[in-house]
Amino acid sequence: MSAPSDPDAITSVPVALGERSYDILIGAGLIAGAGATIAARFPGRAVAIVTDETVGGLHGQALEQSLDGAGIRHIRISVPAGEATKRFAMLEQVVDQLLAARMERGDLVVALGGGVVGDLAGFAAAIVRRGMGFVQMPTSLLAQVDSSVGGKTGINSRHGKNLIGAFYQPGLVLADTDVLDTLSTREFRAGYAEVAKYGLIDDPGFFGWLEANWRGIFQGGRDRTQAIATSCRAKAAVVARDETETGDRALLNLGHTFGHALEAATGYDSARLVHGEGVAIGMAQAYRFSAKLGLCPPDDAERMRSHLTAVGLPTELAHIPGDVGDVDRLMTAIQQDKKVTRGALTFILTRGIGRSFIAGDVDPTAVRSFLAEELARR
Amino acid sequence: MSAPSDPDAITSVPVALGERSYDILIGAGLIAGAGATIAARFPGRAVAIVTDETVGGLHGQALEQSLDGAGIRHIRISVPAGEATKRFAMLEQVVDQLLAARMERGDLVVALGGGVVGDLAGFAAAIVRRGMGFVQMPTSLLAQVDSSVGGKTGINSRHGKNLIGAFYQPGLVLADTDVLDTLSTREFRAGYAEVAKYGLIDDPGFFGWLEANWRGIFQGGRDRTQAIATSCRAKAAVVARDETETGDRALLNLGHTFGHALEAATGYDSARLVHGEGVAIGMAQAYRFSAKLGLCPPDDAERMRSHLTAVGLPTELAHIPGDVGDVDRLMTAIQQDKKVTRGALTFILTRGIGRSFIAGDVDPTAVRSFLAEELARR
Repeated sequence: MSAPSDPDAITSVPVALGERSYDILIGAGLIAGAGATIAARFPGRAVAIVTDETVGGLHGQALEQSLDGAGIRHIRISVPAGEATKRFAMLEQVVDQLLAARMERGDLVVALGGGVVGDLAGFAAAIVRRGMGFVQMPTSLLAQVDSSVGGKTGINSRHGKNLIGAFYQPGLVLADTDVLDTLSTREFRAGYAEVAKYGLIDDPGFFGWLEANWRGIFQGGRDRTQAIATSCRAKAAVVARDETETGDRALLNLGHTFGHALEAATGYDSARLVHGEGVAIGMAQAYRFSAKLGLCPPDDAERMRSHLTAVGLPTELAHIPGDVGDVDRLMTAIQQDKKVTRGALTFILTRGIGRSFIAGDVDPTAVRSFLAEELARR
Repeated sequence: MSAPSDPDAITSVPVALGERSYDILIGAGLIAGAGATIAARFPGRAVAIVTDETVGGLHGQALEQSLDGAGIRHIRISVPAGEATKRFAMLEQVVDQLLAARMERGDLVVALGGGVVGDLAGFAAAIVRRGMGFVQMPTSLLAQVDSSVGGKTGINSRHGKNLIGAFYQPGLVLADTDVLDTLSTREFRAGYAEVAKYGLIDDPGFFGWLEANWRGIFQGGRDRTQAIATSCRAKAAVVARDETETGDRALLNLGHTFGHALEAATGYDSARLVHGEGVAIGMAQAYRFSAKLGLCPPDDAERMRSHLTAVGLPTELAHIPGDVGDVDRLMTAIQQDKKVTRGALTFILTRGIGRSFIAGDVDPTAVRSFLAEELARR
């Protein structure tokens, strides 16, 4: 167990959303210090910890001891680990347990886990009594830099990922950087894909810094905290401009249209492909597609592919074990993706490292032709 | 089928909620004119009609013909009639059918029905793709003056009514006053309880007008439209001040804490008690309880009881067929009601006709003593 948090070592990133504004605290020891932090910011509230069996086993007791120490009433709701948990039946179970415990509107749902737990618990918090208090305690790198920031919550449908949900902002995010040491290298890499994404969208300087310092981020310490804080700041700035994704928030979907299609094509089987790996391949594809369309220098596509490869991320369909289907199957998945607007295909394309943009009317024929080439590379 | 709507005969009530503002249109022929209205206000959108089997049978075809006439693509999703439809399994079915029909974020869920359909369809609209377009077409008096205005959507839990849901505003409400002629007298009376409520909360002049003109409202025509418009204006004003019920929106719950407890105690069996009847008894109880506490003149409690009785509404536990349980059972239902705040009992009490107020810290012992008296009157 870590020592209680040292305020001097904690980085605070504000998310400016008017009356829904909140802080992201990033640093070591935040789980051990959570009781005191919550008691100070949300006095008198009860807490429902929602966690999965894996994360609960690793960090649940430390959090509960911290809440006990601050005199906070708490319960724990445990769900199975894995993407399959993001479904209606599990949502209903979590909601029922919150109501059975008589959690009130002012009480807090605390999501302790990765993106799956955060998305499910946040959606439950959004709909119980039409909105309870909500605190994110992301325990994966992916969740710390992406899903815990910005208020997207939800579950999957048989028609696609994240098609059911709510925009619901947390009141606080506690990103404990120590817990990332319990992640597997594969999980850490998958989260790193989203870190690299912020450089690739609009911050070439950050991308250059990552190329020079990525080993330090994997190692831990100051570089890791800095990379997470930079990522959160980038996401917070986009979310503050466009909370409900009617405009340039869509830039955050760089790599995600192709990536989601690949996750669908692999049946959301995490043994074959996890979200961050899908995003890594999807970003490499967005750069190759942009190069093919003459929008992006081929050297930039090669430079980003080279960096993702250096950290151990996949960048090609050939890196996915097993069959991913044909062009028709991938196109169907792309068209069902929620970022389709009134029938037109919207992609995030790029003019180079850090020069991504929203292309609102991409020709489906060009996408089919590109996908055929990609499949031929297998 | 009615003639297309006559713009001169339509009353428009604006609901001022900043960028979520919308209009309530009230009058005859609005279903027959819906296609033109929707095409003008929401060009290019597809429509998913959500309705129940009863209302769909009465008015579904008229709406579909109107949409066809305006060239609007539409599907119909039908759910069973009745409160039991407001449950997770039905929500999942509606959501799945919306996604299977590839409804996009900009497309419209049109709720054609009473409060059950509006609450379920609105909640589905709120969570599909994190928020689709939404139009209310309330077909009961209760829905026209209450549930279709204000953005409360949701479903029931085994722990209580409306404990799961979202605040989600429609983009338009079309209240066709002709369709109310297809309601049974019992249903119309139940809706009338909510009309009377607006007078009892803070508009003694309106209550006096109702005492003089209630027969015209039941009959139809100008008095009916005026009563609905006055009710919607009253509700819209409260909602505009307090969209998410952190303050005086709670006044709208006059009669609802007792009323919800009675609905729970009768197992939500509409043969025994429908919502508006529970509200009528609950309002009479709120006035009697206030009189017992010395807050309200007994004459005012008698005056409102007399009016509710004149229109044929129940005002006593004795008017409910069968057993409603004992004091303990009713207190448990009251305490699980979502308007409980941090353990204290909140009731809407009154100082007289049109002088209701939020009492935030009511002594549970006084409530128990009052309920014992009420049960003794049976």
